[in-house]
Amino acid sequence: MNEFELIHRLTRALPANGTVVIGPGDDCAVLDLGLPDRLLLFKTDAVVERVHFTRESPPEKIGHKALGRCLSDIAAMAGTPVAALVTLALPEKFDPDFLQAIYSGINTLAGRYGVAIVGGETTTNPECLLLSLALLGWAPRGKAVLRSGAETGDAIFVTGELGGSLSGKHLEFEPRLSEARWLAENFSIHSMIDLSDGLAGDLRHIITASRVGAELLGSAIPLSSHAKRHSKSAKKTPMIAALTDGEDFELLFTVASRDSVPLLDAWKKQFPTLRLSCIGRVTAGEGITIKDQHGVRPFRENGYVHFQ
Amino acid sequence: MNEFELIHRLTRALPANGTVVIGPGDDCAVLDLGLPDRLLLFKTDAVVERVHFTRESPPEKIGHKALGRCLSDIAAMAGTPVAALVTLALPEKFDPDFLQAIYSGINTLAGRYGVAIVGGETTTNPECLLLSLALLGWAPRGKAVLRSGAETGDAIFVTGELGGSLSGKHLEFEPRLSEARWLAENFSIHSMIDLSDGLAGDLRHIITASRVGAELLGSAIPLSSHAKRHSKSAKKTPMIAALTDGEDFELLFTVASRDSVPLLDAWKKQFPTLRLSCIGRVTAGEGITIKDQHGVRPFRENGYVHFQ
Repeated sequence: MNEFELIHRLTRALPANGTVVIGPGDDCAVLDLGLPDRLLLFKTDAVVERVHFTRESPPEKIGHKALGRCLSDIAAMAGTPVAALVTLALPEKFDPDFLQAIYSGINTLAGRYGVAIVGGETTTNPECLLLSLALLGWAPRGKAVLRSGAETGDAIFVTGELGGSLSGKHLEFEPRLSEARWLAENFSIHSMIDLSDGLAGDLRHIITASRVGAELLGSAIPLSSHAKRHSKSAKKTPMIAALTDGEDFELLFTVASRDSVPLLDAWKKQFPTLRLSCIGRVTAGEGITIKDQHGVRPFRENGYVHFQ
Repeated sequence: MNEFELIHRLTRALPANGTVVIGPGDDCAVLDLGLPDRLLLFKTDAVVERVHFTRESPPEKIGHKALGRCLSDIAAMAGTPVAALVTLALPEKFDPDFLQAIYSGINTLAGRYGVAIVGGETTTNPECLLLSLALLGWAPRGKAVLRSGAETGDAIFVTGELGGSLSGKHLEFEPRLSEARWLAENFSIHSMIDLSDGLAGDLRHIITASRVGAELLGSAIPLSSHAKRHSKSAKKTPMIAALTDGEDFELLFTVASRDSVPLLDAWKKQFPTLRLSCIGRVTAGEGITIKDQHGVRPFRENGYVHFQ
């Protein structure tokens, strides 16, 4: 049983109440607590030694990554982060300076986006360091962008360049909060997700939630230089690396095709140094197909999955 | 460096913003998001295999405990829980039925108190199971009960019977949500905390936050039958067990002494099956003293502390 089968089983019948707008299955939970103009976003995410970082990773970057992953999920809904709690689960022997440096990475990133760190918890984890963040944010009422809104004919866009995140970006990425809010304020974004499991895996989350298919244009996928370098050691082509490597933390979203050109034009003025690529379209079919010099073929590989 | 020294160091200078009413150092963080009549409570708590439960613990009770601990912190502020996220960090090999049963324990307790389970996260933890809950709740604006409000002369009360929780109660306790709300609605509760580290440790949190001292009356401490039984194997007197065993999850609170008798009377009518004990008084001094047949002496032992 892999991660997604397990989650499906565990979340089939959960208790709900009148505050729940979106429960499990999107980037954040969405709650209505009665604020006239806003909905609350609620997210947790954990990073674990030996899985998401090693003891050799610079501790500031471990902290940056731990909070950055949650911020990226708030971005995926075009939200604004507000406050976070930090849970540290530590082996019996730890270096206080190392932990202080992790906090320093968290605090610097939090400060940049106006996020308050309002406490948390410290507990014991017998073998390795685990760092879990819980994050609250908000989105204007009716403006949170979901995974489930993709429509047949939509153009599919992705920010940045993909693949090879393990060679460094996974510890250094900048959550796309400003870009996501700008997108939602200026265009009708039908669906959005952040790339944590890899383009193929995360696009599959969008098309499953939206009950549509997707056709990717192979030549349009933005390959990072790291995908090219990393792919040699990982024995993947750069294209497969870009499609399946996890932790790019870029935005993947869909808009009506008529918005594509105005969006690309406006983007270049607003974010001249961040690439935006139209990589395909939403189809009425099922699953993902990829179009390249060999024709159109189904793409069945996924991104990163725990417990495969 | 123990748990509390570490937390003190890590939380000295955290980023804040205009929403923060109470940051680190109380049972929950308190946030003002602009709701006219309410403040938001925000809490995380983790339970870890081999620390808070074993692989032999009934899985429903592990789930009950994981959520119950967070609910107990909401109770300590006289709040109402709203929605929770569940983070499961799992070894590579796990039994889906065991996890389903953990969720069943979470869901049953959540349903009883109207808490929505709105998602969470599943990740890998190399050696053991870790379960972290993030919980949102609310308190009427101006009515969240803090640790810092104890005043010299206050009477100190505790619910239930203390000690020996490890013999079973730590997996089965009922969070005192209804009792805490009733207390805050009917009396001026100056300070409150839930007993997670043990009476002595948690009372020390109240007196430190309130800059007061406390004198306990030894004969008034309610000893559980488990404290009596458990104390033999743990080589503690029942009194020391009641003062220092962790995970009682009862309420410890202070009120003006003139409210003591009306409170005890009203309590007996409202909660006839739950013992309420007046166990001492808040003093102008420092630290905790205990008064028994041998006189008054300082009590320096603490409750449970991680990384001692």
